[in-house]
Amino acid sequence: MSERKYAIVGTGALGGYYGAKLQKAGSDVHFLLKRDYGKVSQDGLLVESKDGNFTLPQVNAYSDVAKMPKCDVVIVALKTTQNHLLPKLLPSIVKNDGIVLALQNGLGVEEEIAEILPKVHIIGGLCFLCSNKVGAGHIHHLDYGQIILGEYAHGYSSMGITDRMQQIAHDFQAAGISIELVEDLLLGRWKKLVWNIPYNGLSVVLNARTDELMADTYTRTLVEQLMYEVKAGAISMGRNLPDSFIQTMLDYTVKMKPYRTSMKIDYDECRPLEVEAIVGNPLRKAQEVGVNLPQINCLYHQLKFLDGRNRIGQLTVDS
Amino acid sequence: MSERKYAIVGTGALGGYYGAKLQKAGSDVHFLLKRDYGKVSQDGLLVESKDGNFTLPQVNAYSDVAKMPKCDVVIVALKTTQNHLLPKLLPSIVKNDGIVLALQNGLGVEEEIAEILPKVHIIGGLCFLCSNKVGAGHIHHLDYGQIILGEYAHGYSSMGITDRMQQIAHDFQAAGISIELVEDLLLGRWKKLVWNIPYNGLSVVLNARTDELMADTYTRTLVEQLMYEVKAGAISMGRNLPDSFIQTMLDYTVKMKPYRTSMKIDYDECRPLEVEAIVGNPLRKAQEVGVNLPQINCLYHQLKFLDGRNRIGQLTVDS
Repeated sequence: MSERKYAIVGTGALGGYYGAKLQKAGSDVHFLLKRDYGKVSQDGLLVESKDGNFTLPQVNAYSDVAKMPKCDVVIVALKTTQNHLLPKLLPSIVKNDGIVLALQNGLGVEEEIAEILPKVHIIGGLCFLCSNKVGAGHIHHLDYGQIILGEYAHGYSSMGITDRMQQIAHDFQAAGISIELVEDLLLGRWKKLVWNIPYNGLSVVLNARTDELMADTYTRTLVEQLMYEVKAGAISMGRNLPDSFIQTMLDYTVKMKPYRTSMKIDYDECRPLEVEAIVGNPLRKAQEVGVNLPQINCLYHQLKFLDGRNRIGQLTVDS
Repeated sequence: MSERKYAIVGTGALGGYYGAKLQKAGSDVHFLLKRDYGKVSQDGLLVESKDGNFTLPQVNAYSDVAKMPKCDVVIVALKTTQNHLLPKLLPSIVKNDGIVLALQNGLGVEEEIAEILPKVHIIGGLCFLCSNKVGAGHIHHLDYGQIILGEYAHGYSSMGITDRMQQIAHDFQAAGISIELVEDLLLGRWKKLVWNIPYNGLSVVLNARTDELMADTYTRTLVEQLMYEVKAGAISMGRNLPDSFIQTMLDYTVKMKPYRTSMKIDYDECRPLEVEAIVGNPLRKAQEVGVNLPQINCLYHQLKFLDGRNRIGQLTVDS
């Protein structure tokens, strides 16, 4: 049992899953919720999982950060579209020498957190998780769950494998979650973008699953061209990916079950898309050093249009 | 009244309109039809137009080129997606020193015709016409109708204003159709692509009208970036467009009534899209001389995917 106190900021499909697993394994976990606070503070969490279902009838639930204890590790499990809330949420709940663990997609979140809290340690996590929130406090874990962890330093200089990373890995592994530690967080993030940019982007623009994108020779080619642009983006920040990595991602996706990407699910549910974190920030990082990624740029503008129109629709439905 | 004999290959919204106007003004016009042959050979053509409705109860209708007379001017009014039929349709109906007038969108048609008929004169026409075929032999002319004509020579070298162009202009003008003669057909085609590539392409990919594309700041920017890539394509073939032309096209489109592009109409009707003529050929022309047009390339691959999926849908519906 860990002596570390964990906070989960955003108790949804991802934060709810990892937080519940940690608590079940004996960690002291404190869950921040918004809409689902009433239900979860009453009834706790229910996780249906291919690895076995379990319930936590009693959890430490909060609707207000002011009531939360200072924690050793604050896990940011919001969608990046909610990151404008972080300056209000984080400062009061992280211990002075604490850790913020950002389990988010895309690029840029560690820098945002470092601006809010220049003195905390920041670790980035890349999650490979299929899970849905099917109701308040009710998580359906479909598959996977492993996390790649890397520690952030100013300018994304490589930090190596730190003790802090190993401590967190220990707690997660005790909870049955597979962890890989990497010396270079930025390289890890760009590697994940090799998959995320083409498949998330094209799945929304073309209303297509991964198998449809790979079965058609034109989109198969476009996916690969986009992946090489992501590689050019990585190189612009001093990180290289072997071409064999791109081929592996293509082959892996062909073999995957037909998959609706997370951005497509968000789009279909009329939720805001993580366009800025996944597409906009990588694009701008490259542009800042004079590298143009024109096909990603095309995709970015298309996604911004679709996201804007989708949210107008949502407002109309809600009002 | 012209002494020239005209053939109309493809008596649809465009060929039916211009052919009917020519016949009404006294030209000798011979119409090739496929599906609509029975109806039109019986009842002729009906044109409803903002400039005045008229009927031609009797027209020279054919379902077989072998029965058609040799003509002085053969007007190709098919969609470019039908151009694989031209080697069968054209040779027997053009006089030896005759003219083929290609009223089609995009790039490449004159070269295709020159391969089929190396000795005929080829004139390209860029039509600015809003018309629909609402039934067999029934054309609805909504607006515009002017044509830009330029004569083709091998390698698109400029031919100046030829007597042949002036003769055709004379016949069309006598039929009330506004004609502009240009010395440089290729420049004219690239200028039309400045509008056609971004608006046709994005209207299909993003399911959007012109006004929606111009109202959103992201697609407005993308349209402009695509227009500058078209300019780069023109430059790759030795033709330049002033930047002011791009600004004029943008301003003109903002002021236009909300418009569903012809490619979007084809897509919505599950007809094959003119992707190759409008997007693919310009892209390859530039690539042949080492110029990459990456955002147009992205659009091309997206459109090929959507066109392919749309036609599979159509086959299912038809079968």
